Amino acid sequence: MDIATILGIVAAFGLVIASIFMGGGLSLFINIPSLMIVVGGTLGATMINYPIKDVIGVIGVAKKAILAKEISLNDIIKRFVEYAKKSRKEGILSLESEIKDLNDDFLKKGIQLSIDGLEPQEIREILETEVDFIRNRHQLGAEIFATMGAFAPALGMIGTLIGLVQMLQTMDDPSRIGPAMAVALLTTFYGSIMANIICLPIAGKLKTRSKEEMLEKELMIQGIISLSNGDNPRIIEQKLLAFLPASKRQAREK
Amino acid sequence: MDIATILGIVAAFGLVIASIFMGGGLSLFINIPSLMIVVGGTLGATMINYPIKDVIGVIGVAKKAILAKEISLNDIIKRFVEYAKKSRKEGILSLESEIKDLNDDFLKKGIQLSIDGLEPQEIREILETEVDFIRNRHQLGAEIFATMGAFAPALGMIGTLIGLVQMLQTMDDPSRIGPAMAVALLTTFYGSIMANIICLPIAGKLKTRSKEEMLEKELMIQGIISLSNGDNPRIIEQKLLAFLPASKRQAREK
Amino acid sequence: MDIATILGIVAAFGLVIASIFMGGGLSLFINIPSLMIVVGGTLGATMINYPIKDVIGVIGVAKKAILAKEISLNDIIKRFVEYAKKSRKEGILSLESEIKDLNDDFLKKGIQLSIDGLEPQEIREILETEVDFIRNRHQLGAEIFATMGAFAPALGMIGTLIGLVQMLQTMDDPSRIGPAMAVALLTTFYGSIMANIICLPIAGKLKTRSKEEMLEKELMIQGIISLSNGDNPRIIEQKLLAFLPASKRQAREK
Amino acid sequence: MDIATILGIVAAFGLVIASIFMGGGLSLFINIPSLMIVVGGTLGATMINYPIKDVIGVIGVAKKAILAKEISLNDIIKRFVEYAKKSRKEGILSLESEIKDLNDDFLKKGIQLSIDGLEPQEIREILETEVDFIRNRHQLGAEIFATMGAFAPALGMIGTLIGLVQMLQTMDDPSRIGPAMAVALLTTFYGSIMANIICLPIAGKLKTRSKEEMLEKELMIQGIISLSNGDNPRIIEQKLLAFLPASKRQAREK
Amino acid sequence: MDIATILGIVAAFGLVIASIFMGGGLSLFINIPSLMIVVGGTLGATMINYPIKDVIGVIGVAKKAILAKEISLNDIIKRFVEYAKKSRKEGILSLESEIKDLNDDFLKKGIQLSIDGLEPQEIREILETEVDFIRNRHQLGAEIFATMGAFAPALGMIGTLIGLVQMLQTMDDPSRIGPAMAVALLTTFYGSIMANIICLPIAGKLKTRSKEEMLEKELMIQGIISLSNGDNPRIIEQKLLAFLPASKRQAREK
Repeated sequence: MDIATILGIVAAFGLVIASIFMGGGLSLFINIPSLMIVVGGTLGATMINYPIKDVIGVIGVAKKAILAKEISLNDIIKRFVEYAKKSRKEGILSLESEIKDLNDDFLKKGIQLSIDGLEPQEIREILETEVDFIRNRHQLGAEIFATMGAFAPALGMIGTLIGLVQMLQTMDDPSRIGPAMAVALLTTFYGSIMANIICLPIAGKLKTRSKEEMLEKELMIQGIISLSNGDNPRIIEQKLLAFLPASKRQAREK
Repeated sequence: MDIATILGIVAAFGLVIASIFMGGGLSLFINIPSLMIVVGGTLGATMINYPIKDVIGVIGVAKKAILAKEISLNDIIKRFVEYAKKSRKEGILSLESEIKDLNDDFLKKGIQLSIDGLEPQEIREILETEVDFIRNRHQLGAEIFATMGAFAPALGMIGTLIGLVQMLQTMDDPSRIGPAMAVALLTTFYGSIMANIICLPIAGKLKTRSKEEMLEKELMIQGIISLSNGDNPRIIEQKLLAFLPASKRQAREK
Repeated sequence: MDIATILGIVAAFGLVIASIFMGGGLSLFINIPSLMIVVGGTLGATMINYPIKDVIGVIGVAKKAILAKEISLNDIIKRFVEYAKKSRKEGILSLESEIKDLNDDFLKKGIQLSIDGLEPQEIREILETEVDFIRNRHQLGAEIFATMGAFAPALGMIGTLIGLVQMLQTMDDPSRIGPAMAVALLTTFYGSIMANIICLPIAGKLKTRSKEEMLEKELMIQGIISLSNGDNPRIIEQKLLAFLPASKRQAREK
Repeated sequence: MDIATILGIVAAFGLVIASIFMGGGLSLFINIPSLMIVVGGTLGATMINYPIKDVIGVIGVAKKAILAKEISLNDIIKRFVEYAKKSRKEGILSLESEIKDLNDDFLKKGIQLSIDGLEPQEIREILETEVDFIRNRHQLGAEIFATMGAFAPALGMIGTLIGLVQMLQTMDDPSRIGPAMAVALLTTFYGSIMANIICLPIAGKLKTRSKEEMLEKELMIQGIISLSNGDNPRIIEQKLLAFLPASKRQAREK
Repeated sequence: MDIATILGIVAAFGLVIASIFMGGGLSLFINIPSLMIVVGGTLGATMINYPIKDVIGVIGVAKKAILAKEISLNDIIKRFVEYAKKSRKEGILSLESEIKDLNDDFLKKGIQLSIDGLEPQEIREILETEVDFIRNRHQLGAEIFATMGAFAPALGMIGTLIGLVQMLQTMDDPSRIGPAMAVALLTTFYGSIMANIICLPIAGKLKTRSKEEMLEKELMIQGIISLSNGDNPRIIEQKLLAFLPASKRQAREK
């Protein structure tokens, strides 16, 4: 789990809750029916919009994106250099034992294809098809969260309108107007929190993560093709370092 | 009818109505003139915008999109493998009896063209023209619902302005202000419901369905061309499986 | 005049006016200065934006788009088939008498070019330049109405702000607050009506009509080129039917 | 200065001011601090956004766009036909005396290049580079005005919030609430006027003018290339008329 | 530091603060919890959205963009002409002493590559990869500030909703309503200031600076390639002047 996400969630939610406590207490801001109309209604509108398997799948995608440890491209490059050395000394078949413990399925599959002796062009096609499906899954995830971020404030406003209409119709006792309007505003509050502190930042996170993961996968494909071509370890390193920005490359050489 | 749509409609409408009942009853929220100005006005603005045949046609498109059972690409692939086996054993003419009971017109037409002996390239052109028209119909449908989703809140606001002007001009009896404003807000409420729980989710659904259907049609075209080329059943299966994501392919092989 | 436009205008305006009458009468909603600031101000901002000849020209474009009878592509195809038969029997010069009564200038000009013996490629270039100018005129029209639809609510808000400032400055007599605010809201009402029931639907209509007319012109160009090439009437019909969706083609064959 | 711009400014500003006078007088609507916060703040935000030389330069671009007399492409075509006649009779060097009095620098430079004997291809490249810089200047101008049109309402709202906070904190004397709120609303009013009657229409005007000027420059480049090639005057006219819409061409032939 | 940015910040902030002082004093507008919820919440949402290293890095990018002195392309061109003269007289190796004191790393690296004798095509590829990373860093910076400009008003509204709900629930003493609402509005005020006077103008600045810096880098690449090719100093000047607009070129020749 990368630290920015933790800090971001703590900062945003913490400040909102702190601000609520300073003004009197959390109980004023908890209203189960209001919460149900915003969260349930937003999920409802989203489920009309997307197939249910995609809406459920998106939770896994989001969890993975938030919990994923940061990718170290330098580590992957180092690993490829080691594989290349071993492969040149003991033959590509010797990599079979190395990849057993790999917990990255994509890398494992790619190297297995090299060991199996497929042509580099075939390996590239198979792996790029795989990458296309990963990219589509990420994009769909970002899209679903963005859709939820668009519906949540709208459902918040619908809830507030319901509360206002009810309050205005039965406006006998002036002392009840204030609290009734406070409750009516809670749905707008929930909708705004749901959109701006949960859904839209997560949609942004998924887009950012997708870019990082696509770069990582492209680097892996390049490395696997190089292994498969039997490239010199030094040349593999040069080729893969081109995927890093200058600043990171310099840091590495120190 | 896919279950997400049912769940979505139940969740969204159910929660709105439940929330209304908890606050006093549905009767406060029913106002026929307000409903007429929002629904009628939105339909009116949409009918200025699009030809009447398209506005009417869109209802059919939406009904089909919502009620359609989920497409099983695996079933279609299995069917093509069977056709390919039969065709290689008994000749392509033997498929004539098979397709009699098909209730997918597109597939039926495509296989009929193969049986009739047209060149694969001609079959592809004819079917792709067909697919273009289906895609345009879906896109037009999504566009019309999105347009309605844009006009509905605007007409809700127009209705509310009418109510406010009338209330403000005749503000003699303070006890009548509340209920009059409640009625004025109802059009905004209807406009927001119509846009965010009906029109915009359906526009999204039509876009999602269109992507699925286009994938299905492309798979069918590939299958028909392969049949027409007399491909080996095993090769047809390989070619068609490329249209499925890896996860579904693995599930299939179990 | 296509019936959807009539229905749309009747529905939208009729419902607004009906709703106004039900609440007390039209007189509350008529305020000439408010109307002037919204309509005049919107036209003013639009005339800064576009040359005056385009703003005036757009009225003609809109009138034509709304009043135009629906285009029957089937009729045009039938006409081309007849021309092709006559041309093959009596020579292309015999079409000179046929086109005298044509009230479609584009078709007339195109066939005249064929009769004059220009090369098909030259005819296509001349006619496509013509089509480009028609398309630009339509697009400019849609753009001007969309611009007006964006300025109208803004000027409505400016008018309301003027009314509010005046009311708030002279808030001595509480009984006058209501009516003064009602008048202030009228400009917002006019701006919203002007944008959502007039300008934006007409902008949409012009885009829809433009697509239809472009299809019609492309069909005509194809027909004229075929005539010029001396194609067989049956082949001309086949080529031109490709411009119709399958459903309309089937309807025709019945 | 084209008449639409005058009419537009008169209509928009005139109606706003007339509407203000009808409601009591201009003095209610003049508040120097409010004006300063909106105009100064908008210029400030714009100057953070763009280099100062571009912000200052944009005033010249706007003045030129508004004051420019309408371009008559027919006059330019006539002029090229005359030049072509003279050039064929007395040689291209004879044009040197003609262009002395030209006040269009672009045209002057282009013809001078022809007289100097550069190859048509070189002339085209030099002139198109020039046109690129003119286009960029126009686009930058439109972009700066659109940015100002986006910041002005935001700063109007900031000013209104300042006024509201001050009023609400010191709400002792109820009779002062109205006037204080009126003053607070003035910044929103100024921001809306600045955006919708000044900045956004001028941004639109610059885009419209840019299209016109680009067409004019392309026509000039075509004419200069033709002169340089020694084309027949009749052919030059034909080529250049293709830049005019059919309606204008017919008008010319009368 | 370019003067427009200073003027812009002084104008925008100065006018806001002046306007606050004229209305009573700054103390009404300072509320630390409100500030914390807007600034902290916006940063929190942004940190969920982007990796922490990018959010921190963006401050450096912004500082550099604002403080950077304006780039004088004419000076760079003059420098290249001098280098070219020296290189032709004393050989390209003589440039080694010249570039020691250069404080532009990009230029230094490029010329060093020329001295090292790499092929022009290789130099171009290496430098353009570098430029791509600089462009991405700028774009990411502009994107992060734009994201913050979108979240800030949303968090301002959330803060105001919290304040309103608390005020409405405990509306016993009417004299406390005004001040409580004033405090509630402060978060909206902070959000609007943060978006419109800080984040969005800086996002715009980064885009503007990026365009300028890309032009500068492209000019440098062209110059380095020309040096490497051993071009004549006069020709280098001609080639590089093509990067300047005509007006600046003329100014230079005076």
